[in-house]
Amino acid sequence: MRQSQLFTRTSKEMPKDEVSVNASLLMRAGFVDKLFAGVYTLLPLGLRVMTKIENIVRAQMNAALGQEVLMPALHPRDNWDATARWDAMDVLFKLKDSADKEYALGATHEEIITPLAQKFLISYQDLPRSIYQIQTKFRNEPRAKSGLLRGREFRMKDLYSFHADEADLDQYYETMKGVYFQVFKQVGLGGITHITFASGGAFSKYSHEFQTITSAGEDTIYVCAACQVAVNREIISELKSVCPECGGTELLEHRAIEVGNIFKLGTRFSGAFDFRYTDERGALRPVVMGCYGIGITRLLGAIVEVHHDGRGIVWPAAVAPMSVHLVSLAREAADVRQADEIYGALARAGIEVLYDDRQAVRAGEKFADSDLFGLPLRVVVSAKTLESQSVELKRRGREEAILAPIGNLLTAVTQELAG
Amino acid sequence: MRQSQLFTRTSKEMPKDEVSVNASLLMRAGFVDKLFAGVYTLLPLGLRVMTKIENIVRAQMNAALGQEVLMPALHPRDNWDATARWDAMDVLFKLKDSADKEYALGATHEEIITPLAQKFLISYQDLPRSIYQIQTKFRNEPRAKSGLLRGREFRMKDLYSFHADEADLDQYYETMKGVYFQVFKQVGLGGITHITFASGGAFSKYSHEFQTITSAGEDTIYVCAACQVAVNREIISELKSVCPECGGTELLEHRAIEVGNIFKLGTRFSGAFDFRYTDERGALRPVVMGCYGIGITRLLGAIVEVHHDGRGIVWPAAVAPMSVHLVSLAREAADVRQADEIYGALARAGIEVLYDDRQAVRAGEKFADSDLFGLPLRVVVSAKTLESQSVELKRRGREEAILAPIGNLLTAVTQELAG
Repeated sequence: MRQSQLFTRTSKEMPKDEVSVNASLLMRAGFVDKLFAGVYTLLPLGLRVMTKIENIVRAQMNAALGQEVLMPALHPRDNWDATARWDAMDVLFKLKDSADKEYALGATHEEIITPLAQKFLISYQDLPRSIYQIQTKFRNEPRAKSGLLRGREFRMKDLYSFHADEADLDQYYETMKGVYFQVFKQVGLGGITHITFASGGAFSKYSHEFQTITSAGEDTIYVCAACQVAVNREIISELKSVCPECGGTELLEHRAIEVGNIFKLGTRFSGAFDFRYTDERGALRPVVMGCYGIGITRLLGAIVEVHHDGRGIVWPAAVAPMSVHLVSLAREAADVRQADEIYGALARAGIEVLYDDRQAVRAGEKFADSDLFGLPLRVVVSAKTLESQSVELKRRGREEAILAPIGNLLTAVTQELAG
Repeated sequence: MRQSQLFTRTSKEMPKDEVSVNASLLMRAGFVDKLFAGVYTLLPLGLRVMTKIENIVRAQMNAALGQEVLMPALHPRDNWDATARWDAMDVLFKLKDSADKEYALGATHEEIITPLAQKFLISYQDLPRSIYQIQTKFRNEPRAKSGLLRGREFRMKDLYSFHADEADLDQYYETMKGVYFQVFKQVGLGGITHITFASGGAFSKYSHEFQTITSAGEDTIYVCAACQVAVNREIISELKSVCPECGGTELLEHRAIEVGNIFKLGTRFSGAFDFRYTDERGALRPVVMGCYGIGITRLLGAIVEVHHDGRGIVWPAAVAPMSVHLVSLAREAADVRQADEIYGALARAGIEVLYDDRQAVRAGEKFADSDLFGLPLRVVVSAKTLESQSVELKRRGREEAILAPIGNLLTAVTQELAG
């Protein structure tokens, strides 16, 4: 798309009242707008990033046999009374309708998915099943100062699995560990995202978080030097500083942000709704459940915290809003025509291009915008490059640029994007 | 996907407490689940339909130069006080956070988009712009008895346009009329969806609705026999029963459902936020706005009201959850293997197939499910069809079936789907 037509504009100033790096950069680049603390609008370029993250997550959930649904955000109080969480969950937003009936805004969806699944999963032949959604959640967070890392309204993928017994849950739970590592690798957080033991619940001693190491993280974890598995500070003393995975004792402290978690719910929620299935012998048995969350907008914020430099964002290719930033410094009509033609050629080749066609903007400002946006490949067209019928290619995050002949443009761009 | 693995199951019984045809059929088919009056979960097949509708709408909005964003559902009271609609809009859900700050749940987004656009649209060179979202909205409707036609939580596409003057708004408004007709034609409501004069507001005498004729509709409209433009009952007496488009006097009464509306807002909201731009001569002038809505879930319900028969839904091809319902009546292992191969061949060809591979279900029940689901093409594989190395093809909504040789399967299926 042409940058001259883009809804947003960049800002040189750090936004007021915003202490987080992720929100500051995303706001300065015009990717998000802050409505109030913890609540942001996704602007055109930001929404493109989020959609790419969601599609990566969606593909992995589908591969894990997840079936996608979309549950409501308005939850009747009855559902939350049934699990005794109406009063116990202090981040619930609550409201009433015109008939004084009470509702919660969905902070999580066990209270909805459990009675829903109960309608359809009747016999052992209906198990196992995995159901997920990618949806907007609401949490009445008292302190929301970490930008997109802790939202009061945020996007989340939540998958719920239903099993005939604990052995089947255990097996699926192990599968999901691998699926989660795939997701974090694909969005550009591989290697620095650690599976982390955290406190469990009524039905399992521990749950597992996926923690991405970043100084902006709100959590403290201890990564085992031997096996790379981590332990959340909340249980480190209980574990006597010994890695529960391999017994290692060299545990290194890091700040980290929880980008996902997986949890064996056992019969905590099926019990609350008396959700049982008929087994092979005709006996009624409780359904065993697991849940698996990924904070989509939090992931977006975490990617920015990890992938930026002093000049702006450095998007991993898979989640970049577009692949190429075509920056035209052309002034003469014939040069502008050539820049337009290059834009057309890239677009026709199916390459996602943001085309900085603005006439009244200085080169320095264009390059500053380009670094702030952080698209993987910058292509500069100017009177100077056109003298040799070339364009200049520079990958974001690298210093060196190369000249490529226009005749060889598509090959050169494709190579740089792949490289 | 294999029907034996599908999360949902069909139901023969009409749902209790549901008087609408659309919700009854969608619930019986397992496309949606009702959480409470006016609030539904989109189940796997229903979500697929909704996604197809959304993608049709999205493509048309993009073609009309709309830029997609995603605005929050939590709106600070201040924004609604600024337009004096906090008290005036009686369907607003209201709530407080833990610090007693007040919020509305977004019932519409003029209060958010106007101050947002104000940050980016500064000069005449930034105009016109069109910004839209496809998002979940909330309205505290006292009576929500029409299934998906009137939700308390529902999906909506809302586009807002920003112009330098009224002439530019008028021009875009006319463009959007054509765009809307395209959308309704593509989702299968062409010919029965009428542009309809309705009451206007502070800045225009009339607005326009798009009304789809169906006996389930909550509105009454009068369609001009001469030009097919309609008039909403609310202004028919004001117009003295004369068509405002062509002067025709033969106006035919119909029940109809409002599936979209377009509205010239003028400076109603830019005025409230003092949103002005700098014109060519450096003078500050108010931005002129338009808004354009399509109820996505309402559209889903309207399609079902229009396209069903005594046996179930009859999806228009463009919004069907899948194209082909492959129904296997095979019992013997060799026949089952052949049915599996046909499923594989269709799937590999990129055709969306629901494969009824259930072994323990009678043929009659399978056919009843198939009619209820309403996929465009039913393909039956049985011992009998396999005797002649054939399958039976039948289009939903037609009585006649044809036999097609398996060797010619893909061609026959493609032809039937195109026909």
